[in-house]
Amino acid sequence: MGKHPLLDTIQSPDALEAMDISQLEQVCAELREQMIDTVSRNGGHLASNLGAVELTVALHRNFHYPQDQIIFDVGHQCYAHKMLTGRLASFDTLRQQGGISGFLNPEESDYDAFLTGHSSTSVSAALGIAQAKRIKGEKGWAVAVIGDGALSGGLAYEGLNNAGRSHGGNLIVVLNDNKMSISRNVGAMARHLAVMRARPAYHQFKSTTERIILKIPLIGKYLRNGLVKLKTAAKNAVYNSTIFEDMGFAYLGPVDGHNLELLDSVFQVAKTVRRPALIHVCTVKGKGYDYAEKNPSIFHGVSAFDVETGERLPGGKSYSQQFGETICRLAATDSKICAITAAMCESTGLAPFQNSFRERFFDVGIAEQHAVTFAAGLSSAGMLPVFAVYSSFLQRAYDQILHDAAAQSLKLVLAIDRAGVVGEDGKTHQGVFDVAFLNSIPGVTIYAPVTFGELDYFLHQAIYHVPGVAAVRYPRGAQVPVPAEYSDCHQPWRLLGEHTAKAAIVTYGRTISAALQAATLLQQQGIHVRLLQLCQIRPVDVAAAAAVADCEQVFFFEEGMRIGGVAEHFEVLCREQGFDGQFLITAVEEQFLPHATTAETLQAIGLDRDSICRKIKEALACQ
Amino acid sequence: MGKHPLLDTIQSPDALEAMDISQLEQVCAELREQMIDTVSRNGGHLASNLGAVELTVALHRNFHYPQDQIIFDVGHQCYAHKMLTGRLASFDTLRQQGGISGFLNPEESDYDAFLTGHSSTSVSAALGIAQAKRIKGEKGWAVAVIGDGALSGGLAYEGLNNAGRSHGGNLIVVLNDNKMSISRNVGAMARHLAVMRARPAYHQFKSTTERIILKIPLIGKYLRNGLVKLKTAAKNAVYNSTIFEDMGFAYLGPVDGHNLELLDSVFQVAKTVRRPALIHVCTVKGKGYDYAEKNPSIFHGVSAFDVETGERLPGGKSYSQQFGETICRLAATDSKICAITAAMCESTGLAPFQNSFRERFFDVGIAEQHAVTFAAGLSSAGMLPVFAVYSSFLQRAYDQILHDAAAQSLKLVLAIDRAGVVGEDGKTHQGVFDVAFLNSIPGVTIYAPVTFGELDYFLHQAIYHVPGVAAVRYPRGAQVPVPAEYSDCHQPWRLLGEHTAKAAIVTYGRTISAALQAATLLQQQGIHVRLLQLCQIRPVDVAAAAAVADCEQVFFFEEGMRIGGVAEHFEVLCREQGFDGQFLITAVEEQFLPHATTAETLQAIGLDRDSICRKIKEALACQ
Repeated sequence: MGKHPLLDTIQSPDALEAMDISQLEQVCAELREQMIDTVSRNGGHLASNLGAVELTVALHRNFHYPQDQIIFDVGHQCYAHKMLTGRLASFDTLRQQGGISGFLNPEESDYDAFLTGHSSTSVSAALGIAQAKRIKGEKGWAVAVIGDGALSGGLAYEGLNNAGRSHGGNLIVVLNDNKMSISRNVGAMARHLAVMRARPAYHQFKSTTERIILKIPLIGKYLRNGLVKLKTAAKNAVYNSTIFEDMGFAYLGPVDGHNLELLDSVFQVAKTVRRPALIHVCTVKGKGYDYAEKNPSIFHGVSAFDVETGERLPGGKSYSQQFGETICRLAATDSKICAITAAMCESTGLAPFQNSFRERFFDVGIAEQHAVTFAAGLSSAGMLPVFAVYSSFLQRAYDQILHDAAAQSLKLVLAIDRAGVVGEDGKTHQGVFDVAFLNSIPGVTIYAPVTFGELDYFLHQAIYHVPGVAAVRYPRGAQVPVPAEYSDCHQPWRLLGEHTAKAAIVTYGRTISAALQAATLLQQQGIHVRLLQLCQIRPVDVAAAAAVADCEQVFFFEEGMRIGGVAEHFEVLCREQGFDGQFLITAVEEQFLPHATTAETLQAIGLDRDSICRKIKEALACQ
Repeated sequence: MGKHPLLDTIQSPDALEAMDISQLEQVCAELREQMIDTVSRNGGHLASNLGAVELTVALHRNFHYPQDQIIFDVGHQCYAHKMLTGRLASFDTLRQQGGISGFLNPEESDYDAFLTGHSSTSVSAALGIAQAKRIKGEKGWAVAVIGDGALSGGLAYEGLNNAGRSHGGNLIVVLNDNKMSISRNVGAMARHLAVMRARPAYHQFKSTTERIILKIPLIGKYLRNGLVKLKTAAKNAVYNSTIFEDMGFAYLGPVDGHNLELLDSVFQVAKTVRRPALIHVCTVKGKGYDYAEKNPSIFHGVSAFDVETGERLPGGKSYSQQFGETICRLAATDSKICAITAAMCESTGLAPFQNSFRERFFDVGIAEQHAVTFAAGLSSAGMLPVFAVYSSFLQRAYDQILHDAAAQSLKLVLAIDRAGVVGEDGKTHQGVFDVAFLNSIPGVTIYAPVTFGELDYFLHQAIYHVPGVAAVRYPRGAQVPVPAEYSDCHQPWRLLGEHTAKAAIVTYGRTISAALQAATLLQQQGIHVRLLQLCQIRPVDVAAAAAVADCEQVFFFEEGMRIGGVAEHFEVLCREQGFDGQFLITAVEEQFLPHATTAETLQAIGLDRDSICRKIKEALACQ
């Protein structure tokens, strides 16, 4: 660090106010340089952050902590914000254990007004802050910065619907329109934005006249207000109104989001309109780094890469890819299979499906609720819908799984990707809740494959051999290692290891890998364990509990929340089967897991090989 | 029954097609008469059903099972549909145990295309059905009938956003606009609808010319298509477009929803537009029953009432009312307290708060997700938000509670009304999931008061004495009976009954009432039990488990889902405390509870006094 001539001098974002345009442009260049450098080493969100550099600089020139709050929706465009608000020196610890988070995090800085990570929350949160200001009689603005992709989420609409009629005039929504969610944006709103982008207002806002007027301080303000009114009236007479005006906002834009002077102007105008304002800003995702600009989807969330060539380090085949191949194979012979994604076509492995079965592929935008209810509709009409979704984002569809699918016993397959610990994305993205919340829904079946072969087998089971809602959950990344003699499990459960040992390890999913290694290590040390592998974790087969009921100790390792998870339920089943020994549970206790590598996190919660060995040895030594 | 001269002759809704206008009007009158009669005796949704009679008749004249599917959003306007589709004879069993459900239920009839109950699902479900038809190459329409209130839900927007760009042209959305959700509708969309209602299009559609054209079969179709195009073009030139046109729909309306001829016409036009159509229909909630028309909020969901006077049978003071009074008392001395409702101001007891603290009261529409994230925003800015919500509807905010409130340890109070069994609304409304899904979220505190006094005490605790998300859950209706000597519990837990007995009942919330009665009855029969009352059910105090660890039998009774609930977790805690006896759990097992009275349902799941006695006596006899 310490290689940014100008950026290094910025102690507080207020310093930006005094800078001239060439200095600001240099700040932007230095921000981009650092972003590319850090993300190329640590991985992270690159394209969205590169696109929001000028916007962030302009926001900090016009809105000031503590009287103003800026909330970046999702938070995957907050890197410039972090570097400008005291975290430049630590920026190279981005997404690393103990380092700074890749998303907004109030624990990290007061400049981060609200925790973000999931999409479409910013308007609601900013409205809450704005209303609190109004009630308390405090000055200042609450600013939500939301991407066009996040607008496809129902929560954003609920927020806009409430904000448009809100009192106070202290709410500003900045629509950062880069024609993208993570993939190319979809839906009627996206089309509507495309129409708006093409309107002359964009050029009008560039007019020199107006910029000159804005530069005359006091008189300028009145002239400007008049101008805005006039223009709005004229625009409404000539063009259709925008959907945002229909919703009660003063609509300003579209504005070039890489032009700092224009951004300054539009923010100044927005502060004068005395009602909720929506500023439509157009940016280019990946701006300033050629490879990212050309391939914004690939550089949305990216692992380490070579800055010179744009090439990413090769990784192994992922569970997502395996899922994508298998679902294609099944769909080739079954025309009822439909695939649904909530703006995650590439990363859930569905790109081949999209190419081969376009008629049965549905990218619904960042709309997990709709994804499930829509799938239930497909199912009620005889199709076989498969919704591929990250565990963490499925949380948003809890009611739809329960009420729209399970309660009417409709066939719905959930392909739950990024199940368990997810690593560097951290706290807001951990896939450790799905088992617990699905457990509470009657009639749901959950499978936890370990290998690609088991993923294939249980996906087939989920589609064809169980009624109702069936989930197959698998972790992020490449297949975990299993011993050469490991054969795929094609049953709800099975015993491995030494079947007659008096101590048993019980676990499921990825943890099987660490458990097998631990069992081998323990055996070498003269400690004998049997290993119960659960492939179907809901409902748990009572016979599986009976298979360890004669043990003296049962050690349950669960990569998920303890309360509501499988372990406690399994203990109850074991007791019913006559087990009267010691039952020791290792699971995610009362906490939200912070960012770190997956290996570091698994170690921290005691789910790696050595922690498993240690736990067992300690318990046996205490006898 | 059997008193409907014309309605009784209808064997299938197809019979409506051959009827003339005066016959149809008679059918409508007979439908209304039966609705009022049944609901006055059984309770149910009256105002919304009365308003949708002509609309339903017109729908069944123009759309036919099995090629067409009609989905009534929420389902609280499906009574006419039920009577017209084979359920007239059984209509007097409405909402009764073993009788017909008050909502759409596919188990009941193939005419009920999709289970409904929660708001805003119909567009997504209908789109799924429409897309399935397209993929399979089948004819027919999927029709979603959605109220203006339900449009405030984000899921409806997600559905519209996806539907507007969908292929197939076989989707019709009927917007049943009665200017109401349950209370007066709120938000920018509601204001937008008000503007649309005032437009001349309404009168244009009445024009005799057009009706005549429509009656000429083949030639009429072409003329009509031309007319529609012409009119749309003209309208767009003269008026602003509607939000629905912005979203890709062919917008038709507004149309008088009580004029059968107009409804026929508009449905015929909608079938010809070759893209998704949205028909804006204006109806009067409560139409045809004077008391309901004047007080649509009161007659939205109603208990038994006197048809002649419109007066409802007096009920006792409810937990909701008690909550409403207490929160007002607290807000009077604490200006930080804000109250939030999702379109349930009256029924959650918040009407007095709305009147007294208008500046701090927020009705966000049917938008539970926004309610929670908005509350989190208020909280982050130093307010004390209290969200009063039915247990069943809180399901929709699972991710927001987890991600937007709990993950950043924000103070948020959830006043969970209708917790536990809800009675006649049945399957889609049971409040039996909240404990399980909240259990999975780190840092949440849950209280389960029994009496009004305990509700007051624990609401105060939740607001002032615990950090983070704190929930207070209480059942529907009036306070459950407790013995004269019962004193309010002001601790996380306490022992009642015979403290040294070797058998223990453990329970929480309303079930304490039945358990106390059971304990008394058992004592009279020489069976001694101690009773552990849990007031704070999350986190459970380990000392509570220790207080029954010396028992030989523990009987846990839980009015909620077994998996993920308190009982299994409590058993694990007891075992850790050295308990090695028999632990028997009575809870809601793997099912969705159907409609019946609350008492009948509690009996069915074994949570009434006699069932509790029987369970204990049987277990003790088996020793």
